[in-house]
Amino acid sequence: MPESIPADSVGLVAPKCEHFDEPIELECGRQLASYDLVYEAYGELNADATNAVLVCHALSGTHHAAGYHDMTERKPGWWDNCIGPGKPIDTNRFFVVCCNNLGGCHGSTGPMSPNPETGEPYGPAFPMVTVRDWVVSQARLADRLGIQRWAAVVGGSLGGMQAMQWSTDYPDRLAHAVVIAGAPRLSAQNIAFNEVARQAIRSDPEFHGGNYLAANTVPRRGLMLARMLGHITYLSEEAMRAKFGRDLREGKDEYDFHYEVEFEVESYLRYQGKSFVNRFDANTYLLMTKALDYFDPAAPYGHDLAKALEPAQVPFLILSFTSDWRFAPSRSREIVRALLECKKDVCYAEIEADHGHDAFLMPIPQYLAVLGTYMQRVANEVGA
Amino acid sequence: MPESIPADSVGLVAPKCEHFDEPIELECGRQLASYDLVYEAYGELNADATNAVLVCHALSGTHHAAGYHDMTERKPGWWDNCIGPGKPIDTNRFFVVCCNNLGGCHGSTGPMSPNPETGEPYGPAFPMVTVRDWVVSQARLADRLGIQRWAAVVGGSLGGMQAMQWSTDYPDRLAHAVVIAGAPRLSAQNIAFNEVARQAIRSDPEFHGGNYLAANTVPRRGLMLARMLGHITYLSEEAMRAKFGRDLREGKDEYDFHYEVEFEVESYLRYQGKSFVNRFDANTYLLMTKALDYFDPAAPYGHDLAKALEPAQVPFLILSFTSDWRFAPSRSREIVRALLECKKDVCYAEIEADHGHDAFLMPIPQYLAVLGTYMQRVANEVGA
Repeated sequence: MPESIPADSVGLVAPKCEHFDEPIELECGRQLASYDLVYEAYGELNADATNAVLVCHALSGTHHAAGYHDMTERKPGWWDNCIGPGKPIDTNRFFVVCCNNLGGCHGSTGPMSPNPETGEPYGPAFPMVTVRDWVVSQARLADRLGIQRWAAVVGGSLGGMQAMQWSTDYPDRLAHAVVIAGAPRLSAQNIAFNEVARQAIRSDPEFHGGNYLAANTVPRRGLMLARMLGHITYLSEEAMRAKFGRDLREGKDEYDFHYEVEFEVESYLRYQGKSFVNRFDANTYLLMTKALDYFDPAAPYGHDLAKALEPAQVPFLILSFTSDWRFAPSRSREIVRALLECKKDVCYAEIEADHGHDAFLMPIPQYLAVLGTYMQRVANEVGA
Repeated sequence: MPESIPADSVGLVAPKCEHFDEPIELECGRQLASYDLVYEAYGELNADATNAVLVCHALSGTHHAAGYHDMTERKPGWWDNCIGPGKPIDTNRFFVVCCNNLGGCHGSTGPMSPNPETGEPYGPAFPMVTVRDWVVSQARLADRLGIQRWAAVVGGSLGGMQAMQWSTDYPDRLAHAVVIAGAPRLSAQNIAFNEVARQAIRSDPEFHGGNYLAANTVPRRGLMLARMLGHITYLSEEAMRAKFGRDLREGKDEYDFHYEVEFEVESYLRYQGKSFVNRFDANTYLLMTKALDYFDPAAPYGHDLAKALEPAQVPFLILSFTSDWRFAPSRSREIVRALLECKKDVCYAEIEADHGHDAFLMPIPQYLAVLGTYMQRVANEVGA
């Protein structure tokens, strides 16, 4: 909880909601007749609507990217390090929009929302959504907000995949694409981790085939396991070593020979797992991991990523982090190579960082400097 | 199932059992009044009993290291690539012993064995066992077999930890120590993976606090998840890419948009998880992961591994594999550096291999050549 709002914060913010009655045809072949998108916006849209930046969230993110909902909130939005007055995505110049993705569990229509056909929560009846579907829905939100062309579409991890998809699906509706800690598709190992997480949730007896809300329960154990596993892949081995090492809890120096928490790292993981269960929906987690698995823009082009990126008309900033083993720098370099092959304008920086995949959320000076410098270029170009 | 026994196989083998009535004091402070050790042996013990090699198994290993139990067995013992006539651990020269570790679930006394105090399976009442405890019990087995001094103690992964422990705890009872794909202690990340596996098992409602046998059930889902997760850490990212890539099952080229198996890698993991449940005990899995977590020979020496290894009197062979990320080559090099620091005789080879941690089980020519050459030196030295 902030005692006072820091000067470089966007301050107190409130989510807004747009309702859409135009049906959306999803990649899976199904449609949603209507849906809500909840979003937050920071800064002021200029008269020509040229200064808008779309921030896309990752697996467990929300629309609450910066600032505070109220003075009791323990932490600001998830990307507060990067969004605010004078920050890399400078709200003195940009109008920043972040929406909760379709299928989410923080206000946008998703598995917890009432199914208009039954009045009950969709639960497992909610259709699979893909990165392409999200981009379609975000384009409709842009229409609604009077934004014909984003100054930039920006995202980390799964958010970076959305930025890539924007660049090819709506090439004239963005001026820049920023892909941070991303990948052009998941590896077999990435899919394997997602599959273990999904099995943890789906094999929890409290899952009830996804109808757990109707059964007045939640698959806590499964979702907790999924999140614990996720956290291992978000942190680097170095970060875990520096943060916990083999330290025992409470300064002990002898083993207890039991299965309760003994090592600090166990305590951390259990805490992360338990707290996640209170703020995230299991069906949404399943959907998000599948959207990750399915993302593979090169597949329809004979697995030629350069061909897939050919329609893009914008300059790209690609950023990766040295210790990220979930989406390692080599994955970002695949994107860079493909962009160079199809002769796009691309800046690439590999940031020295010990934090693993989570680095994209951290206030790492070199990272903030590179992102900030690039976004100033964007602001200058679009007259922000 | 072999149609005929290959010429370089140890052939048909049968486990033996030794019963011990001398109580064993365990590192956890508890004792077992009596216990069985099941083992297999291949080759002939020579007249002076100088040609015996102890092979120590890893997390999910057994005493069945080589050969076939009968002609219907689908696969030979787990280290058949390395043990046999003319193989690196050459049964024409060596008498090879491999026992199921105390706490195991393949015949040696463990959680599935009857607790003599109750007549019921020990279950969760079975005491925690450590690498040190295993080495004590293996020394007693050596006594029973008339082996005063092993020509070599050899092991991969957790087995390598036992070889290290032998070298310091019984320096005059072995002539060589061979530590393959090992580590001097687990990292925070290693412990974290073990903890997720344990939580998967322990949070399974069928676990019943470990008393699942009494409840006539087993925590199948939890053990399956633990094994699926384990498999991700046994394979390298490269191996997974080469083996599965992003291939869909049954040659499909479109997504099905459901949660059943879609990708080949999902199919592989589920198969591995399911088949493991039929051959392994959940309480044993918990014990084995804890033995891994607890192994830290340097801890009592101010975390100075060279000091911990000072009592060792034998030459060491240390082997690692380039793509092993569970116990990476850097972990083996920690052992090598400590051995050099305390002026021990050490050979080290880092084997180029794409298989990840599992490489230690594979017939990789360079690996077999290095191990075989070293073991010939051992055989010559001990007059095998």
